[in-house]
Amino acid sequence: MSSSVIRPGRIEEISSPSNPRIKSIKALSMKKNRDREGVFLAEGQKLVTDALEKGWTVRTLLHSRRLLEDDRQSDKIRSLAATVRARGGDVLITNDKLLTSITRRDNPQAVIGVVEQKLSDVSQVTQSEDDCWLALDRVRDPGNLGTIIRTADALGARGVMLVGETTDPFALEAVRATMGSLFHVDLVRLTEAQFGDFTVEFRQQGGVVIGTHLRGAVDHRSIDYSSGPKVLLMGNEQQGLTDELAAVCDHVVLISMNGAADSLNLAVATGIMLFEARRHKLPAIGAV
Amino acid sequence: MSSSVIRPGRIEEISSPSNPRIKSIKALSMKKNRDREGVFLAEGQKLVTDALEKGWTVRTLLHSRRLLEDDRQSDKIRSLAATVRARGGDVLITNDKLLTSITRRDNPQAVIGVVEQKLSDVSQVTQSEDDCWLALDRVRDPGNLGTIIRTADALGARGVMLVGETTDPFALEAVRATMGSLFHVDLVRLTEAQFGDFTVEFRQQGGVVIGTHLRGAVDHRSIDYSSGPKVLLMGNEQQGLTDELAAVCDHVVLISMNGAADSLNLAVATGIMLFEARRHKLPAIGAV
Repeated sequence: MSSSVIRPGRIEEISSPSNPRIKSIKALSMKKNRDREGVFLAEGQKLVTDALEKGWTVRTLLHSRRLLEDDRQSDKIRSLAATVRARGGDVLITNDKLLTSITRRDNPQAVIGVVEQKLSDVSQVTQSEDDCWLALDRVRDPGNLGTIIRTADALGARGVMLVGETTDPFALEAVRATMGSLFHVDLVRLTEAQFGDFTVEFRQQGGVVIGTHLRGAVDHRSIDYSSGPKVLLMGNEQQGLTDELAAVCDHVVLISMNGAADSLNLAVATGIMLFEARRHKLPAIGAV
Repeated sequence: MSSSVIRPGRIEEISSPSNPRIKSIKALSMKKNRDREGVFLAEGQKLVTDALEKGWTVRTLLHSRRLLEDDRQSDKIRSLAATVRARGGDVLITNDKLLTSITRRDNPQAVIGVVEQKLSDVSQVTQSEDDCWLALDRVRDPGNLGTIIRTADALGARGVMLVGETTDPFALEAVRATMGSLFHVDLVRLTEAQFGDFTVEFRQQGGVVIGTHLRGAVDHRSIDYSSGPKVLLMGNEQQGLTDELAAVCDHVVLISMNGAADSLNLAVATGIMLFEARRHKLPAIGAV
């Protein structure tokens, strides 16, 4: 049994906001910098722990010095730091003020991880009997995307396909809204054309593609979701599905509404659709 | 037939950011100022039109001068301004830069309304056969609250009860997230004790109170929602329901999940619950 030797990460104490490492981490608030470095920020001990458990690479762990001085926290943070270093990541011990300047939130976390991005390829999309994938057409709002990833995880979707030009799933606001589910759900990025090609093969193997659209003519409750692999495709917040995407769906459905609102929020509509598609698979709880 | 005589509102052109009226409107970004003045901001022509249609009082209409110079827009904005003035509201003609400074968003609306706040009293909560109310225990996030109000409207809930210390439904972010549904749904504010008293009377009249809670032991799919007035009570984002509120519920239910996520986003959970409670009342769309 052989494995490549990993050099343990270094540990460094930083208190100056003009430190170049801090500056380059702050710069990760911009997408172009995240993409160039291939990393993103995960805030909080829970998220960094989730990332490590699921095999994501934490390139740098930042934490506040005060955690080491807090009896209830010091063991946990030392253990987290040791895991990161053992896998080759660096540990930067810093202060709350610097951490706040990185995440720009009123109530900052005392732990931040710089995590390597990971997206699956469309070839990795499995198509087994019970799989239910979510696909999002040009989702625009990072909070919506994060909430949808969290919903996909909670309701047992197999993963989330990001079709076309979508907002960045690795933006701070998106990662925050996932509440850690980012690390538990497969994310696949593909173009509209790739998605079209995928549906051809998917259908040949018994899969069904169900689009949700305000121009849908079929009630979402009328579909039989009980067997076979499924993709639920949700349209963009403003425009719904493109005509091209609506055309590759086996069904284009609509969620029944009866108020004055024109539409549901995308994350809410996704939750209702996904629950309907998964309701026969989700375990029954207790009894009345 | 007599009616009180309304003095038509004045029209004024303002381009200076230091104008005291602009300053006091900017100050409405803070809750204490909104509460003192009893007003809030509604962004965009659609929201202001919705407000007027539903009988809300628009105290001041602000719009960009360029709308008057745009052939496709000028008739609409003149008509909106005339309606506001006829009901005693003032019209301030200003510029995009000033409007941006009020709403602080990248892509500002060219129309803003200063609208009078309106909340119903618990005595106005009707209890007819088909009514389904939403109640929210200490909802914290303004975006969640706005999205829930939009969901309540779309799925035909009778109104939204805000229990305990909740975030302000009239905050800019909440109003934005309602997408106009704020003007279509009754909002009731009440204390936890008042809600408790309400449930006693509600139950005497055949009503059922269903709480959703992560410690719930009953599957939300197992409840018979088909008859009688209902209140769906949703807990706070972090803590769920208080013990006191859980105790006044007839059923405490849980939405089945099977992923790694601990919980659903509150607005998504509310959408799933409300759809389940209303699924027999929501009209069927088309046919497969």
